Amino acid sequence: MAEARIIDGRPIAEQLQAQVAAEVAQLKAEHGLTPGLAVVLVGEDPASQIYVRSKGEKSLAAGMHSVTHRLPEQTTQEALLALVAELNADPAIHGILVQLPLPKHLDQGPVIAAIDPAKDVDGLTTINAGLLASGLPALTPCTPLGCMIMLRETLGSLSGLRAVVVGRSVLVGRPIAQLLLQADCTVTIAHSRTKDLPAVCREADILVAAAGQPQMVKADWIKAGATVIDVGINRVPFRDPVKAAAGKTKVVGDVDYKSAAKVAGAITPVPGGVGLMTVACLLKNTVTAAKRIHGIEG
Amino acid sequence: MAEARIIDGRPIAEQLQAQVAAEVAQLKAEHGLTPGLAVVLVGEDPASQIYVRSKGEKSLAAGMHSVTHRLPEQTTQEALLALVAELNADPAIHGILVQLPLPKHLDQGPVIAAIDPAKDVDGLTTINAGLLASGLPALTPCTPLGCMIMLRETLGSLSGLRAVVVGRSVLVGRPIAQLLLQADCTVTIAHSRTKDLPAVCREADILVAAAGQPQMVKADWIKAGATVIDVGINRVPFRDPVKAAAGKTKVVGDVDYKSAAKVAGAITPVPGGVGLMTVACLLKNTVTAAKRIHGIEG
Repeated sequence: MAEARIIDGRPIAEQLQAQVAAEVAQLKAEHGLTPGLAVVLVGEDPASQIYVRSKGEKSLAAGMHSVTHRLPEQTTQEALLALVAELNADPAIHGILVQLPLPKHLDQGPVIAAIDPAKDVDGLTTINAGLLASGLPALTPCTPLGCMIMLRETLGSLSGLRAVVVGRSVLVGRPIAQLLLQADCTVTIAHSRTKDLPAVCREADILVAAAGQPQMVKADWIKAGATVIDVGINRVPFRDPVKAAAGKTKVVGDVDYKSAAKVAGAITPVPGGVGLMTVACLLKNTVTAAKRIHGIEG
Repeated sequence: MAEARIIDGRPIAEQLQAQVAAEVAQLKAEHGLTPGLAVVLVGEDPASQIYVRSKGEKSLAAGMHSVTHRLPEQTTQEALLALVAELNADPAIHGILVQLPLPKHLDQGPVIAAIDPAKDVDGLTTINAGLLASGLPALTPCTPLGCMIMLRETLGSLSGLRAVVVGRSVLVGRPIAQLLLQADCTVTIAHSRTKDLPAVCREADILVAAAGQPQMVKADWIKAGATVIDVGINRVPFRDPVKAAAGKTKVVGDVDYKSAAKVAGAITPVPGGVGLMTVACLLKNTVTAAKRIHGIEG
């Protein structure tokens, strides 16, 4: 059987980044509007620092106004809320991203809730979840948005296709299901309580694995020719006992990629797939937010 | 084949009404709290007048504080918004229901949005849709809530069952799907773009018909023994040509009841099924809202 087409995240993300840059240039030229993104990082988490640097660099590269607020580990809830309020009020800022996780002494819920929903480019507020659930224009979490862009790039119209989402997390599974429904798929949400999960997965023309279980989805869970989107990012020990003993780890998805690629029609790799889309989607959301705030159509 | 068990809405609604009355009595006795419902009716729509009267009577019968505001047809948007603001601020009121549809000169969206989400007992605000979509405690629209109570009454635990919802309306199909997911069903949302809808429906242990298409769901769309919840309320002419010629109409559901009842394990009739649950669910929501506002558990 032919190997699946690999849905490479890099060119799709680069294309989106270029589209965002072009749109930013147009907004500047036609409306005198420079979309602005504020990223807030509290503390010294090394992974968060890498993400935040990348968001800052790529927003600048797209021609956007970009501000990164680095607050010390011991920042108080009040100080963080005050910064969010300031950014809500700042007309140069159209997108606010508070990098998660926050240090443990801070309460994440009220911080997210304090972000103006119109500037909530991470799509985390209850209002944006409600708009999405109601089929209304929302700011959508970046990973689900990235999945949809990859699917449209691969399949064109998704109308009438059967989509199965494995996983019902608030940040990934549920919003992806909403977006697939909006794209006129027949959508099934499966999860840990689902009976005969392999059989449910085999119904899918589009299978989205977002369960957080390393290599859970096997080849025989996949309908021949289906498109498989692997949202999982799981760090596991190497199989090689020498490397494993040395404490070396690698990143795998929720799909058993090697065997799945022999059955699927198209599949995203991990790493190199959905994960690469996130920052470009954040920039796209910031442009969307800027346009909506200024009542610019299209 | 044995006929399906009929899921009669009347005793289930009466039982719920009695539970609400008992809970109201307990809240009065233990917390000095009387749940209060305000119903707002603008204009003279005859159907709305019947609904509003029923809501007022049943809330009084449950021992609740109950106020009905009847505003003239020509009420302005400003006057209606001012009343909503007054009810939001009124500590004796825990539930606010603005009877829809509003007269055409009024803009429904801003009126709904003005209702305090904590008092939104119709579950129509974006915040409540977002809470529901995020699996958090929400005030849920009454018809979906009624469907869930009927299902639990019929089946007990729903965990692991396959549920198919036909229809993706914001008021019915989408919230029912969310509630079924919360009850640990594997949930499929089907709609007008679904391919081979009969085959998708035949996967269902629980089939919820909420498409607004008279008698669309046929017997051979139903898996033997499945539980069928018919949310449709469609007014159609009588088949009898004499009655039809006289302009007489009857109400039918989205399911072809007579033939479906020969295949299903249990089925709600129309009329006499889901429709009877709505007012009791409204009262239940009002009690839930009163308890949450006052921080009373359980």
